[in-house]
Amino acid sequence: MRRVPVREPAELVPLREATGQKLWVDVQGLDDTATLERVARIFDIHPLALADAVNTPQRPKADTYGEQLVLVTQMVRPDAAAGMTVEQLTIVVGRDFVVTLQDLDYGDVLDPVRARLAAGKNALCARGSDYLAYAMVDTVVDGYYPVLEALGERLEAVETEVVGRPTPELLRAVQRIKRELLTLRRSLWPQRDALAALTRGDSTVVAAETRLYLRDCYDHAIQLIDVVETYRELATALTDAYISSLSNRLNEVMKVLTVISTVFMPLSFLASLYGMNFRHMPELETTWGYPALLGVMTVVAGGMLVWFRRKGWLGGP
Amino acid sequence: MRRVPVREPAELVPLREATGQKLWVDVQGLDDTATLERVARIFDIHPLALADAVNTPQRPKADTYGEQLVLVTQMVRPDAAAGMTVEQLTIVVGRDFVVTLQDLDYGDVLDPVRARLAAGKNALCARGSDYLAYAMVDTVVDGYYPVLEALGERLEAVETEVVGRPTPELLRAVQRIKRELLTLRRSLWPQRDALAALTRGDSTVVAAETRLYLRDCYDHAIQLIDVVETYRELATALTDAYISSLSNRLNEVMKVLTVISTVFMPLSFLASLYGMNFRHMPELETTWGYPALLGVMTVVAGGMLVWFRRKGWLGGP
Amino acid sequence: MRRVPVREPAELVPLREATGQKLWVDVQGLDDTATLERVARIFDIHPLALADAVNTPQRPKADTYGEQLVLVTQMVRPDAAAGMTVEQLTIVVGRDFVVTLQDLDYGDVLDPVRARLAAGKNALCARGSDYLAYAMVDTVVDGYYPVLEALGERLEAVETEVVGRPTPELLRAVQRIKRELLTLRRSLWPQRDALAALTRGDSTVVAAETRLYLRDCYDHAIQLIDVVETYRELATALTDAYISSLSNRLNEVMKVLTVISTVFMPLSFLASLYGMNFRHMPELETTWGYPALLGVMTVVAGGMLVWFRRKGWLGGP
Amino acid sequence: MRRVPVREPAELVPLREATGQKLWVDVQGLDDTATLERVARIFDIHPLALADAVNTPQRPKADTYGEQLVLVTQMVRPDAAAGMTVEQLTIVVGRDFVVTLQDLDYGDVLDPVRARLAAGKNALCARGSDYLAYAMVDTVVDGYYPVLEALGERLEAVETEVVGRPTPELLRAVQRIKRELLTLRRSLWPQRDALAALTRGDSTVVAAETRLYLRDCYDHAIQLIDVVETYRELATALTDAYISSLSNRLNEVMKVLTVISTVFMPLSFLASLYGMNFRHMPELETTWGYPALLGVMTVVAGGMLVWFRRKGWLGGP
Amino acid sequence: MRRVPVREPAELVPLREATGQKLWVDVQGLDDTATLERVARIFDIHPLALADAVNTPQRPKADTYGEQLVLVTQMVRPDAAAGMTVEQLTIVVGRDFVVTLQDLDYGDVLDPVRARLAAGKNALCARGSDYLAYAMVDTVVDGYYPVLEALGERLEAVETEVVGRPTPELLRAVQRIKRELLTLRRSLWPQRDALAALTRGDSTVVAAETRLYLRDCYDHAIQLIDVVETYRELATALTDAYISSLSNRLNEVMKVLTVISTVFMPLSFLASLYGMNFRHMPELETTWGYPALLGVMTVVAGGMLVWFRRKGWLGGP
Repeated sequence: MRRVPVREPAELVPLREATGQKLWVDVQGLDDTATLERVARIFDIHPLALADAVNTPQRPKADTYGEQLVLVTQMVRPDAAAGMTVEQLTIVVGRDFVVTLQDLDYGDVLDPVRARLAAGKNALCARGSDYLAYAMVDTVVDGYYPVLEALGERLEAVETEVVGRPTPELLRAVQRIKRELLTLRRSLWPQRDALAALTRGDSTVVAAETRLYLRDCYDHAIQLIDVVETYRELATALTDAYISSLSNRLNEVMKVLTVISTVFMPLSFLASLYGMNFRHMPELETTWGYPALLGVMTVVAGGMLVWFRRKGWLGGP
Repeated sequence: MRRVPVREPAELVPLREATGQKLWVDVQGLDDTATLERVARIFDIHPLALADAVNTPQRPKADTYGEQLVLVTQMVRPDAAAGMTVEQLTIVVGRDFVVTLQDLDYGDVLDPVRARLAAGKNALCARGSDYLAYAMVDTVVDGYYPVLEALGERLEAVETEVVGRPTPELLRAVQRIKRELLTLRRSLWPQRDALAALTRGDSTVVAAETRLYLRDCYDHAIQLIDVVETYRELATALTDAYISSLSNRLNEVMKVLTVISTVFMPLSFLASLYGMNFRHMPELETTWGYPALLGVMTVVAGGMLVWFRRKGWLGGP
Repeated sequence: MRRVPVREPAELVPLREATGQKLWVDVQGLDDTATLERVARIFDIHPLALADAVNTPQRPKADTYGEQLVLVTQMVRPDAAAGMTVEQLTIVVGRDFVVTLQDLDYGDVLDPVRARLAAGKNALCARGSDYLAYAMVDTVVDGYYPVLEALGERLEAVETEVVGRPTPELLRAVQRIKRELLTLRRSLWPQRDALAALTRGDSTVVAAETRLYLRDCYDHAIQLIDVVETYRELATALTDAYISSLSNRLNEVMKVLTVISTVFMPLSFLASLYGMNFRHMPELETTWGYPALLGVMTVVAGGMLVWFRRKGWLGGP
Repeated sequence: MRRVPVREPAELVPLREATGQKLWVDVQGLDDTATLERVARIFDIHPLALADAVNTPQRPKADTYGEQLVLVTQMVRPDAAAGMTVEQLTIVVGRDFVVTLQDLDYGDVLDPVRARLAAGKNALCARGSDYLAYAMVDTVVDGYYPVLEALGERLEAVETEVVGRPTPELLRAVQRIKRELLTLRRSLWPQRDALAALTRGDSTVVAAETRLYLRDCYDHAIQLIDVVETYRELATALTDAYISSLSNRLNEVMKVLTVISTVFMPLSFLASLYGMNFRHMPELETTWGYPALLGVMTVVAGGMLVWFRRKGWLGGP
Repeated sequence: MRRVPVREPAELVPLREATGQKLWVDVQGLDDTATLERVARIFDIHPLALADAVNTPQRPKADTYGEQLVLVTQMVRPDAAAGMTVEQLTIVVGRDFVVTLQDLDYGDVLDPVRARLAAGKNALCARGSDYLAYAMVDTVVDGYYPVLEALGERLEAVETEVVGRPTPELLRAVQRIKRELLTLRRSLWPQRDALAALTRGDSTVVAAETRLYLRDCYDHAIQLIDVVETYRELATALTDAYISSLSNRLNEVMKVLTVISTVFMPLSFLASLYGMNFRHMPELETTWGYPALLGVMTVVAGGMLVWFRRKGWLGGP
């Protein structure tokens, strides 16, 4: 396995023509249309396939153009700021070559494939271009696992907080997670469909043996979709939990208000009553009037508190 | 490529009979039934197809009538007042002609196709009527992207406001967006189905090569539907966010009320207590009575505030 | 085309035997089982088909019994009191006759078909019994449009009111609309299925040409279902709007209560404070005490109002 | 048609061997495994079929074992206490016999079939074992109608109450209805599937003529499922109505509280104000002070009430 | 049937080669990759199958590799702490052997299979490796029943509490149950699919007779899924019940507050009124003033209470 940096499409012609070799052309950067078209001409890539590669983002898919198979996939990677980045990788699989097209700025997830090729002496080197393409797709699909795990951890972090302290920030966090799950879903479903089409296999490019491996890859895609759907249901449950947590809080606040009001309103009324200036109020003249009233007030307040305790309004929600 | 304005259907007969030419008849205005029927007779258009073209809006579809293919599509364009306008375009594809039927008042989205035809010397001029029809459908489908982008921007604008200031106007904005998404969905799903039917292809009008292009167009339709579904989920999440934002507000209001009531009710009670006119209230006679009571009140109010701070009811939601 | 009133089934026998004629037998009233069975015997109608016609309501469907096609459809019409009425129409299509069976009390939607038959000299008279049956089904399906339009207008009327004045009557109106939409859906879905089965066509009764017309009818059924589903989503959104409108109202009420309480509680406390009867309260003795307190109260109340204005609690939600 | 009570499986052998007769063996009670196995051996019933019959409840299904058809169905009947009871009936259909297996304790819904057999001289006696099995399944399916009607009446009863007086008992009633609908759904869906399988018909046991009847039975199953789904939607709408009815109540309560508080707080403040003991309060000395204050209070209270009437807070929600 | 403990893969070679015997190799512990690979080489297990067995958890599935069938299943068992544990069991079915691979730490649910093998002289011993594999899958599927029953009991326990005392703990319990139901669903659906694939049967390993048994097993899987879906709907209904129970509580609290406030506010106002220090307040001078006011207060309070009783705010929700 050799690795050759190429600056001019013309340099690809001799490599293309060298028979008995498997060729991987890794095109990075999609802005230089003229160069891309020259590459496409060298490898007989259909104009529609090239258009799909360049006009990102396309929906992931597996298309057959004559003898060639064109896979449009999406690579995801965790990203500190935005949660994750999604980038398109187009894989053109011919009989004895693979052309990958991707944008320049992001880097990709194919380093494990490059490492295995550099190591040499393994299935990846021995088998055909279809197996190489499988290895790429497999790496792309496996790249969803760490992103989903990070999302799962964020969901759990939100969950432990949402019942204790329901803040609007939490709700926004849930909705950010929901949006990322929607993005992953929109990306995974068509990849699943494309893999299913490859596994059923009407393309002559993919060998029967490689189909077994693609079936495995397809199983992983389904497993990922299962996880995404489960997380979506959990996120929906979190929104419910948030709203009912708010209701709980409101209940608690209202209970405090009601307890305070209910205890002090009758007491204040009694105090106001004996603050009246009627000339003829015999209770006011007695010595025991004041302490007796204080006693009555204590009994009233105590009775209220007992009532509330019975209703379960004191101590705890 | 020539462009000939036609006022009378009879003028179409020589154009129709000139073999070796591809003909695009662009009928604008659907009110003059007699003229339309004459055009239909010249091009052997089935009465049902004509009825579908005239009785707008029809559900988008692809019907085969003998050797002819009839596509009913819907063109959308952003509209300042109503958000967007939807208008029907019926495309009748024959072996060597295309007849498009549309209403007069709106204008259409086919200008890019006209420009490419006028430019000449490209695939559009070289290939058959089926490719011309594909180019039209492609332009129609691509016309959904700017409308969806505008909707996406409106969704985001609402989203940033909904948590901060939940007004009923925002809810109405969300519901307007939802309704437009429903309209787009009702328009896109059948177009997707029609494109799928064309791609599978039992019609003899569409060449195998053109089917590759229609498959691409079909992929775009699916991608648009994905976006519509995603936006619908986001709009639903916004409704949830709106309602929980209202609950948050209510919680905040209730906390203010509860804090104020809970602090002042005991204080007012104490003040009322010493406003009573009992003859025998020894505290009233002492010099230190008034300042002592003020001290007690400060302690009570301070204790309350400490309690509320611990509960997190002061400062922030 | 002749129209002959028939009182006795026996009178049908000569009409049935007159070859070269298309016969439409319109049976109105389903109570007289004996007569119905005699009619069924004359036209070889299968007992199960007759049972379906009599035991209303049946689920709409298209069944084949040997050479006969039996269509069970449902006619809807707007109704002032109940919103709409649904009534069953059973259409038995034989090689040269059509038997329709319906209840006596309601009237039907077939008058346009009768009018076109009476007019004579059109497709309806010229073509076979299958085309006559198509014309009936088409009229039945088109009968859903005005009912749906009326529902749409009621939805809109409710919508403009629901945000301004959320009364329980509105919610009940929404739920009535929802129930009618459910009824329409339960009626339209199986008619769609029956039309699809007819279009795919394994019945020998329906000519290929008539199938084109049934396909059009099928498209209308799908379009109606689309509208029903859209209205159902709008009705659900209205329920959400109603509930959040209630929350808005509650918020408004609570704000008024909180503003009033928060302004007057401190003022009342201050007033109570200086209503105490302590002997030693130096402020009471001063000349400026009363105006000073009034000043303090004004400042407190003004400060509160400024705070509320900043919070946006004054003037509008 | 003879009816013979059998205590010992051995007595079945001569009945089984009498050719030219249709035999219905009605096994009641599933506890005596040894006897059941002997019966199974006489009629060549597959061990899996017997296991399904004994281990209740099984999911309804239609299985073919060689020449035999085994139907597992569920009979429902209204029940005063539990709403309804569900019981399994297993029907083994052979060429010239039907074996039904059911539990002893409940009774079944097959009495109409027994009555028609006893009456003799009808299709049930004349046709084969497959028609007898159809008659049983038809009776079982028709048994769902009264149960669903009872549920519909309970739904309506709850509906009229839920807006007027939302009590938790109503919510519990709705949820009980929902649970019974879930049970019916879980029971009806697989019976629909089984009937569909029978109608498509790969079993040689069922004659083509009987298939027409099973198709009718299948239509009833679908109609029942439609009703169940409609009721489920209505029950969900009731839950919404219940919750918004609660919100309405809360709004009403809050309005009362707010009106009372808002009217009396300013009045009480004014009264407290002139209860202060400042030496220098010139208003207190005047003769017109007291009546003037009463006038002011009347104006304030009246103004408040006018304001509330404008807001629509007085009289009705 | 013999049971032989094996420590070294090499010991398997003679067992493998002994013809006319059925072999079950039960591999416990998946950490020692080298040993596993040696076992895999002895039994010709495909590297992908081994990878699936080792990299747990995989999505349950049934894959065919040449003559071998590889089943990935998941065993669940109730667990006191976590509700339940899910563990992977991989079953490799060859013509005359079964290899099971599982983790060491958990134990499995296969003891009934082992017991039946040890008992000898039953179908399990007599039939081929495919029947042995069926027996394992059947045991695995039946292992879901007790887990689901435990979940059902927990759901019911929560349900009886949720209306009476809505605490946040209950909501969390419901969400824990929901999550476990999601896990079960994610585990059961693919097992159902795998069983369906086996029942349709393109694999040559599974005999037609065994397929009947697998169909039974498939029915159980569907029944389990039905129960899971029903429980999920019940859990959702419980969340609704919880939220509306909170609303009920809030209503009750607000009624108490409103009753207390509404009764005491007018009374306190009257008391404050006659606490004013106006010189000219003729009522204060009369002897009957005080008792008359007390009478007025009693009438006002009594009138309020009568009004509340009419509104249904006293006693009960």
